[in-house]
Amino acid sequence: MSRFQARAFEQTLTGYRNVTTEALLASIPTHGPPHLYDLVSAYPRRRGKGIRAALCLATCRAFGGTDAQALNSAVAVELFHNGFLIHDDVQDESIARRGGSTLHRKHGPGIAVNVGNATNLLAMRRILENRTIVGLERTAWIVEETERMMRQTLEGQALELAWIHDNVCALEPTDYLRMCLKKTSWYSFIYPMRIGATIAGAAPAAHDFCQFGWYVGAAFQIQDDILNLVGDYARYRKEIRGDLLEGKRTLMLIRLLSACTRAERRDVQRYLGAPRHERTPAEADWLFELMLRYDTIDFARRSARQLAGAALVEALKALRHVPDSPAKQFILDMVMYVVSRDR
Amino acid sequence: MSRFQARAFEQTLTGYRNVTTEALLASIPTHGPPHLYDLVSAYPRRRGKGIRAALCLATCRAFGGTDAQALNSAVAVELFHNGFLIHDDVQDESIARRGGSTLHRKHGPGIAVNVGNATNLLAMRRILENRTIVGLERTAWIVEETERMMRQTLEGQALELAWIHDNVCALEPTDYLRMCLKKTSWYSFIYPMRIGATIAGAAPAAHDFCQFGWYVGAAFQIQDDILNLVGDYARYRKEIRGDLLEGKRTLMLIRLLSACTRAERRDVQRYLGAPRHERTPAEADWLFELMLRYDTIDFARRSARQLAGAALVEALKALRHVPDSPAKQFILDMVMYVVSRDR
Repeated sequence: MSRFQARAFEQTLTGYRNVTTEALLASIPTHGPPHLYDLVSAYPRRRGKGIRAALCLATCRAFGGTDAQALNSAVAVELFHNGFLIHDDVQDESIARRGGSTLHRKHGPGIAVNVGNATNLLAMRRILENRTIVGLERTAWIVEETERMMRQTLEGQALELAWIHDNVCALEPTDYLRMCLKKTSWYSFIYPMRIGATIAGAAPAAHDFCQFGWYVGAAFQIQDDILNLVGDYARYRKEIRGDLLEGKRTLMLIRLLSACTRAERRDVQRYLGAPRHERTPAEADWLFELMLRYDTIDFARRSARQLAGAALVEALKALRHVPDSPAKQFILDMVMYVVSRDR
Repeated sequence: MSRFQARAFEQTLTGYRNVTTEALLASIPTHGPPHLYDLVSAYPRRRGKGIRAALCLATCRAFGGTDAQALNSAVAVELFHNGFLIHDDVQDESIARRGGSTLHRKHGPGIAVNVGNATNLLAMRRILENRTIVGLERTAWIVEETERMMRQTLEGQALELAWIHDNVCALEPTDYLRMCLKKTSWYSFIYPMRIGATIAGAAPAAHDFCQFGWYVGAAFQIQDDILNLVGDYARYRKEIRGDLLEGKRTLMLIRLLSACTRAERRDVQRYLGAPRHERTPAEADWLFELMLRYDTIDFARRSARQLAGAALVEALKALRHVPDSPAKQFILDMVMYVVSRDR
């Protein structure tokens, strides 16, 4: 995808996002205890890319539904994303998110945990509201899908936390892909598309999106990890190289551990075994230089592009009975966008 | 309630609890990523009192239902309780729970937040399983009730966190009661009874439990706060006087702030305004002495007993059409138990 195509795609994306953000902000209670619902809107106001809600809306359109049917679910998808981010930032002790301080740095971890819970609960509220749109039976199916998505996400998050906690270093790229499926792909790609199609009236058995969503989600995550290393803060809006200080098991790190010398591997393992607050920026720079020396970023870029290719094949399979439309094209374009993006 | 009666009540309670704990532990997945489901069972294995699940089972029995119908929901109630405790301990930076280290002290706050989420999600899984027991329509009602309960609990938790965060000192006993309704009464008393009656087949409109649950829950919370000050660790199993170090707005503290001299009030406010890690045990002892000097514990004890009396009146109203049975008697006995208990 050329830079020009990426910008055109982003314009369509922004259109989808604005519809969702407006509805999302309007759905947040205006009364309640201090430091709760007012903070639920903090991350959404900072405007993410909105790809998850856009996928939900576009899939609904592609399957013959309307935005009016899907908006409620698109808001839920985006709320879940924000709820997960809040907890994720607490768990990773992250510093910046979307160009501002993370919620727990501003208001303390206690309030941040609560606001994350409230965000997820408001998402669930939106999911339950589907009853008036698609009836009880189909809403029950969507609730089951929601529970499944949350379980996958939690397990993926647990896997990543356990790798850091236990200082696991014997990891293969396939371990990373399995983690991506659970931590990223399910809630960011598989779930929004499955809900979008169902809301439009497609029978749950008539669509899948699991392979497609897995691959595109993994490509997305790899690109995210690359941007964390070499991105531009003004566009990426998270702390650059924060992953190195967090000890995150990225594809670059996994590649490095298998490519470097035994002595270097021992040093990297020692660095990763230290508590986060003992890791210095100078050490993170050293790890970054090692990653560059062993071409791990190029390796990751190639992997992301291969995954995008595989995702495209699966996308065409998943959408083979869906007539061509701008919405369908948007879903297909998403694949190359996730590996071309610089934000 | 005499000590003898309390022990007899606790024996019945233990019977209910053992049924629930066994089913609860059997419902936790045995596979999955490390430090997730294995830790979900950590707090339940330490054996709480189990009053919430017992209320759910007893209410179902009292309304003519069976344990087989209610067990699933009783497990959910107890799981939600444990999930809330895990997050609550992170938020309050608590040290001990049920005679052991809190989860976040043992495994770090990142893993603890995730395990809390997993516990709540497993609870929601149990709630959804009710579909095979009471059908889709009634399960949808229970899901709505669950969402409402979680919202109340979050808002109550937010209120308490905000009072500490903003160092709010101008509080009346009515503020405390409102916080109890949301933080404690709803999920511990109102919700278990409402679900129990509904599972037994009572139409949702035919039972209420809101007043009854509010009052008994507030009495329970006051007693809990008293035990935190003057309890026996061997029975109470949380760190004694931890609330003083946490700056918790208990009824004793609210009473003290309105009864003490202006100079003392200024000192107390200064103490409460410091970050938790700057408060010393010696200062907590000083605050405790002040609370004793102004008879705040006696004041709280009287308030708890008055609330228990009001709860009993409401209990008899709520259960007036329910025939006498051991289960009904258990619910009524619960009222005096919550203010007599030493654990």
